[in-house]
Amino acid sequence: MLNFTYYNPVRLIFGPGSLDKLRANVPAEGPILLVSGGESIRKNGVREAILGALSGIEVVEFSGVEPNPHLDTLLRGVDVARRCGAKFLLAAGGGSVIDGTKFIAATVPYTGDDPWQLVTGREKIREALPLGVVLTLPGTGSEMNDGAVVSRLNPTDKQPFRSEKLFPKFAILDPAFTLSLPWRYTANGIADAFVHVMEQYCTKDVFTPLQDRIAEGILATLVECAPMIKQNPDDLAVRGEIMWCATMALNRLVGCGVVQDWSTHLIGHALTAEAGMDHARSLAVVLPWLLRDRIQTKRGKLVQLGRRVFGVTGADASAGADASADADASAAATIEAIEAFFTGLEVPVRLDPELVTEEVLQRVLGQMSVYKKGLGENQDITPAVVERILRASLGK
Amino acid sequence: MLNFTYYNPVRLIFGPGSLDKLRANVPAEGPILLVSGGESIRKNGVREAILGALSGIEVVEFSGVEPNPHLDTLLRGVDVARRCGAKFLLAAGGGSVIDGTKFIAATVPYTGDDPWQLVTGREKIREALPLGVVLTLPGTGSEMNDGAVVSRLNPTDKQPFRSEKLFPKFAILDPAFTLSLPWRYTANGIADAFVHVMEQYCTKDVFTPLQDRIAEGILATLVECAPMIKQNPDDLAVRGEIMWCATMALNRLVGCGVVQDWSTHLIGHALTAEAGMDHARSLAVVLPWLLRDRIQTKRGKLVQLGRRVFGVTGADASAGADASADADASAAATIEAIEAFFTGLEVPVRLDPELVTEEVLQRVLGQMSVYKKGLGENQDITPAVVERILRASLGK
Repeated sequence: MLNFTYYNPVRLIFGPGSLDKLRANVPAEGPILLVSGGESIRKNGVREAILGALSGIEVVEFSGVEPNPHLDTLLRGVDVARRCGAKFLLAAGGGSVIDGTKFIAATVPYTGDDPWQLVTGREKIREALPLGVVLTLPGTGSEMNDGAVVSRLNPTDKQPFRSEKLFPKFAILDPAFTLSLPWRYTANGIADAFVHVMEQYCTKDVFTPLQDRIAEGILATLVECAPMIKQNPDDLAVRGEIMWCATMALNRLVGCGVVQDWSTHLIGHALTAEAGMDHARSLAVVLPWLLRDRIQTKRGKLVQLGRRVFGVTGADASAGADASADADASAAATIEAIEAFFTGLEVPVRLDPELVTEEVLQRVLGQMSVYKKGLGENQDITPAVVERILRASLGK
Repeated sequence: MLNFTYYNPVRLIFGPGSLDKLRANVPAEGPILLVSGGESIRKNGVREAILGALSGIEVVEFSGVEPNPHLDTLLRGVDVARRCGAKFLLAAGGGSVIDGTKFIAATVPYTGDDPWQLVTGREKIREALPLGVVLTLPGTGSEMNDGAVVSRLNPTDKQPFRSEKLFPKFAILDPAFTLSLPWRYTANGIADAFVHVMEQYCTKDVFTPLQDRIAEGILATLVECAPMIKQNPDDLAVRGEIMWCATMALNRLVGCGVVQDWSTHLIGHALTAEAGMDHARSLAVVLPWLLRDRIQTKRGKLVQLGRRVFGVTGADASAGADASADADASAAATIEAIEAFFTGLEVPVRLDPELVTEEVLQRVLGQMSVYKKGLGENQDITPAVVERILRASLGK
């Protein structure tokens, strides 16, 4: 196990009816800036419930935060927050709304010229407005971590950033708020959570048997629950467990002391920025092909994952790390099982050549060209390897 | 899954050499009160390393905190802290030292007449001195939670208490600090962590597949690592993993949304108070006999635990919750596997009749008589059931 520091002060409030704890967790004096995408929380009654819970406190609204939230949109939110003198930000939505709210929280007290430098890390986030979350779309895990991803145009870019100042004070997770989600979003969230765990698990072994088992526990629970919720979308118990899995997948716990990868995410971010793909769907088209390309270095974990989560047999417990026909076959069968899992979610595992044309591909590869020293736990995923992975996913 | 709130702001700093992060995590101005048992941190060099890391800051020492720390001892610590005007408490030791430090932290600012009422909960812990931990004996999990247990004589009593004010600000976990532990303490810590998980896992099922798998992951890792560390006590990687398991066993995460038991602990506390047994050893003599007595209600989880952790076969996955000869046999085999695990640790699974004489037993039962409405997740462990469990453990 590698040395690590784990710190996560988010108060997680889980379960149907949890919104009744909202008022006790926000400042008694407003104004509170309610940040949202807009449409969905109006339709599903969450907005009304929040306003009811906060009655008597001044609430100002900023809606219209889009998926993969854009700098320009968020700067308008900063302006609204400053003008009303917001004391607290309340994000109501999924990962994009929460990430956007984190950016607003960091930027409101920022006095420099270029807030994008808070994202690039060239300027440090020294303070931030306090924020809380009412989660309506599980997947990114942003509700229980200190990270965010925002995008900009001119130049096109999608960048992650982190700061301890950006931990939400609380996150309210009511699985009933996810009942109205279209299947595409439920499925995307499950795929996203699955890949988050894979990036922290399917790397080289440094003797982390507990973290391995926790990671496998999240993956196995997603694999168990996905067909259940597809069959019965109204099952609140299953929705709750999926919500908890997605939060646990990126609250940094399974990342403690392990070697991490994150190359699938960096490639996926470029696909989202250049081709407008859903975040989760960009991950699902990259992961299997990246695993196939890196099967030599990821074989040990793939064999273990196959055996413990997908019931893949054929290589015994000790065969994982060593090259052998058995281990190769098991690792390949595990990758196929992952693809079958995504396919069962109706999440594609191939790039659409009509969307990712040769021209778009070249722009994606242009973005990836900055990673010359190589992505992944072994820094062996060079721009040339990325091109091979993406062409394989395109069937080229 | 039941509704829950999870909040744990402890900064966990893990790994060999982590003491170099101590200074940045304590106030720049002392005095700091260093609380310890005394002997062991002098012998193993931890005291010297701490004083070196804090050079230039005023450090006052209070040592002599005994196992199952006593009110009288701790009140002397409160006196020392008040007299020196301590700004911060640093616990260096295991669960008893940390728990004792939490009591001192709560009592220093307390202005009432009877600090024991902070333990009974009749008075609320309104504020507390900040504290940090350098862990030298993994087991109780106190380094990453807000709970503590203290004892008193006249009348004899051992009581748990909790307050969010008592979370350590940080816990430094360097597995090298555990290398000098006698086997008895290493084994006790493993047994303690195992039982902590069992109390939060081996109860009735409310559809918590992720929490189940995390709990089983901790149990399986303890079962995997215990013989490794017995064979090779100097293996720092295995010691690190055991340390992480013990912390994870009681940082409340596996308790999220599940039905909990804790009757083994309450019975164990009475055995420790009346017979002076090691905390972990009191648990190990109660748990298997309590499970045998409650096999009808705990059968489902016992079958699942046996299958997933101990390789017990004989009942299929769906048989767990229902009565059947197969399921009963699997549940019984799981209890035997737990006993074999404790026995492999050289931790007894029977009460010693020379220690727990009939007179001592009667005193223990006298303490348990307050739990008339019944302990356990079904409140069916009445004082009469406790007597049956303890007599079974005595072979009577």
